[in-house]
Amino acid sequence: MQVGFIGLGSMGQPIARNILKAGHSVIAYNRTRSRAEALSSHGARVANTPAEACRAEVVITMLADDRAVEDIVFEEQGIRAALSAGAVHVSMSTISVALSKRLAKEHAARNQGYVAAPVFGRPEAAEAAKLLVVMAGPAAEVERAKPILEAISRKLFVLGTEPASANLVKLAGNFTIASMLETLGEAFALMRKAGIDPQQFHEIVNSSLFQSPVYENYGMTIVGERYEPAGFKLRLGLKDVRLVLAAADEMNVPLPAASMIHDHLLEGIARGYGDIDWSGVAKVLAEDAGLKARSAGSAS
Amino acid sequence: MQVGFIGLGSMGQPIARNILKAGHSVIAYNRTRSRAEALSSHGARVANTPAEACRAEVVITMLADDRAVEDIVFEEQGIRAALSAGAVHVSMSTISVALSKRLAKEHAARNQGYVAAPVFGRPEAAEAAKLLVVMAGPAAEVERAKPILEAISRKLFVLGTEPASANLVKLAGNFTIASMLETLGEAFALMRKAGIDPQQFHEIVNSSLFQSPVYENYGMTIVGERYEPAGFKLRLGLKDVRLVLAAADEMNVPLPAASMIHDHLLEGIARGYGDIDWSGVAKVLAEDAGLKARSAGSAS
Amino acid sequence: MQVGFIGLGSMGQPIARNILKAGHSVIAYNRTRSRAEALSSHGARVANTPAEACRAEVVITMLADDRAVEDIVFEEQGIRAALSAGAVHVSMSTISVALSKRLAKEHAARNQGYVAAPVFGRPEAAEAAKLLVVMAGPAAEVERAKPILEAISRKLFVLGTEPASANLVKLAGNFTIASMLETLGEAFALMRKAGIDPQQFHEIVNSSLFQSPVYENYGMTIVGERYEPAGFKLRLGLKDVRLVLAAADEMNVPLPAASMIHDHLLEGIARGYGDIDWSGVAKVLAEDAGLKARSAGSAS
Amino acid sequence: MQVGFIGLGSMGQPIARNILKAGHSVIAYNRTRSRAEALSSHGARVANTPAEACRAEVVITMLADDRAVEDIVFEEQGIRAALSAGAVHVSMSTISVALSKRLAKEHAARNQGYVAAPVFGRPEAAEAAKLLVVMAGPAAEVERAKPILEAISRKLFVLGTEPASANLVKLAGNFTIASMLETLGEAFALMRKAGIDPQQFHEIVNSSLFQSPVYENYGMTIVGERYEPAGFKLRLGLKDVRLVLAAADEMNVPLPAASMIHDHLLEGIARGYGDIDWSGVAKVLAEDAGLKARSAGSAS
Repeated sequence: MQVGFIGLGSMGQPIARNILKAGHSVIAYNRTRSRAEALSSHGARVANTPAEACRAEVVITMLADDRAVEDIVFEEQGIRAALSAGAVHVSMSTISVALSKRLAKEHAARNQGYVAAPVFGRPEAAEAAKLLVVMAGPAAEVERAKPILEAISRKLFVLGTEPASANLVKLAGNFTIASMLETLGEAFALMRKAGIDPQQFHEIVNSSLFQSPVYENYGMTIVGERYEPAGFKLRLGLKDVRLVLAAADEMNVPLPAASMIHDHLLEGIARGYGDIDWSGVAKVLAEDAGLKARSAGSAS
Repeated sequence: MQVGFIGLGSMGQPIARNILKAGHSVIAYNRTRSRAEALSSHGARVANTPAEACRAEVVITMLADDRAVEDIVFEEQGIRAALSAGAVHVSMSTISVALSKRLAKEHAARNQGYVAAPVFGRPEAAEAAKLLVVMAGPAAEVERAKPILEAISRKLFVLGTEPASANLVKLAGNFTIASMLETLGEAFALMRKAGIDPQQFHEIVNSSLFQSPVYENYGMTIVGERYEPAGFKLRLGLKDVRLVLAAADEMNVPLPAASMIHDHLLEGIARGYGDIDWSGVAKVLAEDAGLKARSAGSAS
Repeated sequence: MQVGFIGLGSMGQPIARNILKAGHSVIAYNRTRSRAEALSSHGARVANTPAEACRAEVVITMLADDRAVEDIVFEEQGIRAALSAGAVHVSMSTISVALSKRLAKEHAARNQGYVAAPVFGRPEAAEAAKLLVVMAGPAAEVERAKPILEAISRKLFVLGTEPASANLVKLAGNFTIASMLETLGEAFALMRKAGIDPQQFHEIVNSSLFQSPVYENYGMTIVGERYEPAGFKLRLGLKDVRLVLAAADEMNVPLPAASMIHDHLLEGIARGYGDIDWSGVAKVLAEDAGLKARSAGSAS
Repeated sequence: MQVGFIGLGSMGQPIARNILKAGHSVIAYNRTRSRAEALSSHGARVANTPAEACRAEVVITMLADDRAVEDIVFEEQGIRAALSAGAVHVSMSTISVALSKRLAKEHAARNQGYVAAPVFGRPEAAEAAKLLVVMAGPAAEVERAKPILEAISRKLFVLGTEPASANLVKLAGNFTIASMLETLGEAFALMRKAGIDPQQFHEIVNSSLFQSPVYENYGMTIVGERYEPAGFKLRLGLKDVRLVLAAADEMNVPLPAASMIHDHLLEGIARGYGDIDWSGVAKVLAEDAGLKARSAGSAS
């Protein structure tokens, strides 16, 4: 299939490569052109404008946030203007429910298809074509996009015909992870202050209790206080918690745990931790308990 | 070995049976005598008083709460009075850090051994000898108790020489589960209000994201709103959250998530949900979002 | 002075009348024309469009929310288009810090003046020309607007040259009141459940402790459970808490009390209490403690 | 009347003096004897033991906390043992509801009277005989104690026959003040970060909005960051918040604001602020927003 791909960051790059590997033809656009060119050795063509990347049956966007998506879609030569009737915009970015609803409406008004397909997984999972994809949109459009997304994922869920549902599930999923980080942060602070080896607590809680790879990875990060380099920056985690709160607010659903986590992440930003990993909320909570970072090398 | 066993409730009963199976000799005491007698067909002798059960090298207590342990230990003919010097009290109940410290002190004053060995796991895990045991106490005493506890567990951790550490880890572990329940409760309320199938959300969050048996079991309970019969009663969950808060308070560690969960569990008690499963905190949160229980049979 | 007045709701109406009484000439506009006409017997001229109301030295807006202000300012024949260079827009509405900043920028770009002047006080205070006005804006423009605002207030504060400061202070002020309501709601629930007369508790806390008219009024409302008719609707209170949270978020200031109040007000909305007085957060909190509304007449 | 007085700290000292001034005869006891002797120049006799102070019609205790009251009442030669049948113990300390209930029971069992009479007010108010007294107990005993308490107060409330009610009201009253401190702390952090003069915000919020002496005093303390010397230590404030939470817990009343304040005060303790004024919770909140203390002298 002819696929346009816009947004070749740390997630977009490996995703686009896997689409190429699956035999699709890709025309790639990135604001910083060099990132698109990096893909040309893998067989992609480089688009000079977003409009050029829209000469495709399916155009995928994988961008940082609402603002970036709005710009690329609604600008004068943007996707809205350039995409053919009948073609489908597949939005993989983690964006707000509100923007996803707006995209559905704007594309429908021009007979363009629109599917939301946010993903769970870090760059390594993208590389390995093992993302978890959550899709939603009109059935026919979902069918069009499916083969492409199957090429990049270990599992793909279709959530129904309303695209914004997929965005909400992505945000709620991130909230469950954020809440786990908050909890581990509090529990580890308690262990450290009680003089109990955090490593041993981690083994008990995860190896034997939760037995989850998510607890395993983040637990070890917190035990080792290895918040840099960030796998997912605290400021981006905060952005997603804001988005789930905004969506819940719209539906009159109180999310007190999300509100509290929001406040602790914001406390992290206020202390200058915006660029460390979002599991660094544990650092904020340790400090709130009067603990200092342990000296380098003392983690093990 | 000669083992005294006091407290034959839904956990104590199968644990004592597995100790018998492992070839130890058991003398059992329970306030309600019939529960001790139930064990006699499995080879246990029935003690008429706690003191009688103390005629052993190791006496195990598995009781409901601090009050029950205090009564049985400190009453006139209780364990403190009856246990021989050199014998070991193994306390498996989920009790406060403060009481565990007091027990350590009182037993030491009489040259009695004391080991804390709380467990993770439900009655079925006890039945299958697959509990997770967290032990702490003086090395020699831990060694004495270990063979007995290995007979009932799939995994056994030794946390050091301070018994109360094991109690703290048990309470912190329960806090991490309680926090997961709070989070799932909020997330499911959001899904239901957005018209997204809770079952599908559960699959995404667990089967593909956390991949944890704990999320699996509790997630399905919440999806199906099957809070009765309780696996672990909400009022007991609240008790444990109180205990972790008390321990943290003592060490000047704020646990804001635990405080919040405490308030939601208390809200549950106020609404009459003390005897449903503690995952019923999700019911409280659904109601706080203006949702009603779905009609029976509509869960699937 | 020649004053345009846009927005003749329960606050705008008495404010405009007091401006007339002070000898200014008023040209009034309201979407629902009859509300502007009600003012003509007091000497105002009725404008047919917002643009007509802008034929003045100072144009005041007193509208419900951001949306209403954006519409009237930015629509094709709106204030931005119609106001003369040199004339001043005085915005008295409780709006977001973000919108106030945008207004400052847009007006400045057209050499129009802009002053923010939100008020504290209910319709009765507006009637009695006893509002508390918080102004901010460039000095010269503040001087222009001052005589008009002095005619409607018991006290007027000038906060500096940045208009948005006045909006932030207004929002923070409303937050302090909301927080008092939350606190009283919790305390009264406790008193009721303990069988202590809420009226007597109110007397102790207010008459003798805080000695504040704000505690007096709201305390009596909660004691009497007289949440209807609303003096200030719960949904508007929630709107203001959202705005203070948004402003704080922008500045990386966690406001955990505001987050918590947000969640309780949202819980109120979810239960259908959007149109009762915002002190009805006490009703939400009483219900969370398992209390029902007392029967009518049982308050004393 | 013959009055025993036990506990001559910063509150007890001026209270006892005012009782002497009112013409009563006082026999005073204090663990640190010199504090009792200080009173002898005002006409008091000095007791060598608590038992000696009990040779009176009414014995008043004004002690630091539950522990101190338990010791003095229940020790071998304590109040319980020494007080005559028919005499009345008036407990003015801020103690737990649970201990107050126990005292009621123990005294009743010996035909001793018991009245709870905690007070609102700082040492200066005690000095000026302007405390606010909240009494509860059996009517006849309240009548006995009233003349003494009227001599030290500007206002006296009788809450009914159940002594613990007075303790609960005292704790709930302190909670309302703590909550005000939390709120002001958050609001001032927001103002400081927005570059708005805290002094001016204080004037708006208090002089014109709340108009309360409590807001006035504490607001000025926070504006000036004058947390030392403490009027009421943060650790004592935390103690009282714990007590109100414990009482509410017992009655199944969630107090989410109190839980949150508890956590912030605890954070203060963890940072070493236990001995500054409890309004120093504002310092904790400012730090959580990334603010540092302003340099000395910059407050005005």
